Amino acid sequence: MSQKINNIQKVAVLGGGGWGTALALTAARAGRDVILWARDPGTISDIRSRQQNQRYLPGITFDEELLATNNLAETANADAILLVTPAQSTREMLKALATVGTFKVPVILCAKGIERSTGKLLSDVLIEELPQAIPAVLSGPSFADDVAKGLPTAVTVACENKTLAEALTTALAAPAFRPYASTDVIGAQVGGALKNVLAIACGAVVGRKLGASAQAALTARGFAELTRLGAAMGAQQETLTGLSGLGDLVLTCSSAQSRNFRFGVELGEGQNAADLIAAGGKLAEGAHSAKIAVELGKQHGIELPICEAVAEVVQGSSSIDKALSSLMSRPLKHEDGKQ
Amino acid sequence: MSQKINNIQKVAVLGGGGWGTALALTAARAGRDVILWARDPGTISDIRSRQQNQRYLPGITFDEELLATNNLAETANADAILLVTPAQSTREMLKALATVGTFKVPVILCAKGIERSTGKLLSDVLIEELPQAIPAVLSGPSFADDVAKGLPTAVTVACENKTLAEALTTALAAPAFRPYASTDVIGAQVGGALKNVLAIACGAVVGRKLGASAQAALTARGFAELTRLGAAMGAQQETLTGLSGLGDLVLTCSSAQSRNFRFGVELGEGQNAADLIAAGGKLAEGAHSAKIAVELGKQHGIELPICEAVAEVVQGSSSIDKALSSLMSRPLKHEDGKQ
Repeated sequence: MSQKINNIQKVAVLGGGGWGTALALTAARAGRDVILWARDPGTISDIRSRQQNQRYLPGITFDEELLATNNLAETANADAILLVTPAQSTREMLKALATVGTFKVPVILCAKGIERSTGKLLSDVLIEELPQAIPAVLSGPSFADDVAKGLPTAVTVACENKTLAEALTTALAAPAFRPYASTDVIGAQVGGALKNVLAIACGAVVGRKLGASAQAALTARGFAELTRLGAAMGAQQETLTGLSGLGDLVLTCSSAQSRNFRFGVELGEGQNAADLIAAGGKLAEGAHSAKIAVELGKQHGIELPICEAVAEVVQGSSSIDKALSSLMSRPLKHEDGKQ
Repeated sequence: MSQKINNIQKVAVLGGGGWGTALALTAARAGRDVILWARDPGTISDIRSRQQNQRYLPGITFDEELLATNNLAETANADAILLVTPAQSTREMLKALATVGTFKVPVILCAKGIERSTGKLLSDVLIEELPQAIPAVLSGPSFADDVAKGLPTAVTVACENKTLAEALTTALAAPAFRPYASTDVIGAQVGGALKNVLAIACGAVVGRKLGASAQAALTARGFAELTRLGAAMGAQQETLTGLSGLGDLVLTCSSAQSRNFRFGVELGEGQNAADLIAAGGKLAEGAHSAKIAVELGKQHGIELPICEAVAEVVQGSSSIDKALSSLMSRPLKHEDGKQ
């Protein structure tokens, strides 16, 4: 393995969405040999023939020529895998990988979220399905569009093995893409798991026109929930206050580019959660993960009032006004959460 | 004093700007007897006769009738003082107070910043000038307009004496205004002292059109600077991640309502710092405090690269492009700041 560590040259990116394509581009800019696996033949031919991913990154043409394939076996000799398929497809993708190769390499989890059916972190799913792989996580405040366009972006890359974490950051570092190394694989996943729930709450405050002060207060108190749950799950404080925690939370809780934030805005404007969910299309991940977050809180004995409020509104057991007013009228506690 | 603690009824607010007026209104809504001292006779007559502060809170008419005066002696029998004059006038105001009464009461510092001439926290200035007073701090994400309009707002109220901190939060709590008690007087001042500097950097990223991902990354890394300096100065972690720290930082670093953020945007758009400062008018506090923050960092042996970059741009010793690119191309460190 030590040879691999010092020579991460062949990188396979799995997932032809916006984020997968953007990460493939930035790895190419970093000087790696990149192969992008995508399920959709249209995406592959679009990338091959026009250096575009019109479906997910409309209007952006790449300077880089990316190798694209829909044959998973072509990724088997990579020195590192970036797994960028949707969080809920992680187990299925890993099972598919196991059929085409051995993959005794770093598998960098780039999707955010918790497996709904089990409440597990994606790194635990990885250990179960591909035990010979080395779990790593890439997370941080990063819109696919920004990264694809070469705007400056900084992310956390976590791997328990410090030397390998550093090797991965070196392999992926491009002029506008700065990965920071961390050994906290759990911590690097907590922000991504909770931020979508908190973004719905922040969106609701905006949709209800409660003002920027209330939005900022909710972001800070949401971060306190993230920190409490993260600490109970074994995350390190500096990871939670870093790019994958606070950084990503700030981005998701303030930007209309975030689907979860927009879902919250629509709730705040008075739309019904059930109607919004029924209208379907692209679902807001946080609408699903609110309930899972509340469950995790219960397991660890942690109060998560904002996540609970979002879960209640999504389930229809509370109105948005009742939920927001109950959040604002909580008993006057000390700032450290103690009475 | 114990009687006072249980009976904070008469509240004097010093400062007739937007924030002073908003805090006077919210104290009145909380059921306190409020007297507002302002220097400007026009502001006083506007408040008395029209229930407005047209100069600083244009378009807002108060439901509450506020007592307003420009006679400082009328504040001498208050159970608590809210000091809401500009940070750089704090010492002068305290000297004036000392000439009209004894003030063995809580003096709640509501302005944000560090005394430029000495680099001292305002609580230290208070102890020097009015040693018999009990230092307290009110800080958090709060635009005067939002508070005056009765939009939901949450702030930290810190006082070393825990019972008194709680009594102050009870005295000031109104339906839409939620103070949280803290005993960390130093911590509650650190966010306010640094946020304006960091807001200039975030504004510059926006003005330079570097994208929301870069803005969020800079906010998170700015928060890391705030945390490192705060810890060295004796602040508690939970205060820094709370309303007065993270909450206020998020608000200031994301909102065009913030003067410092706007100053940064103009720098990012290519305007010259010296020209912006010469154009004068209302100055961005962060343009002054960047240098002080760098000094404080040196005193405590803490690296503050973002503050340093802002200080260099303001002093004209670096261009905005050079400063931003040096921030983005720092060596790949670990997320905890160690090499």
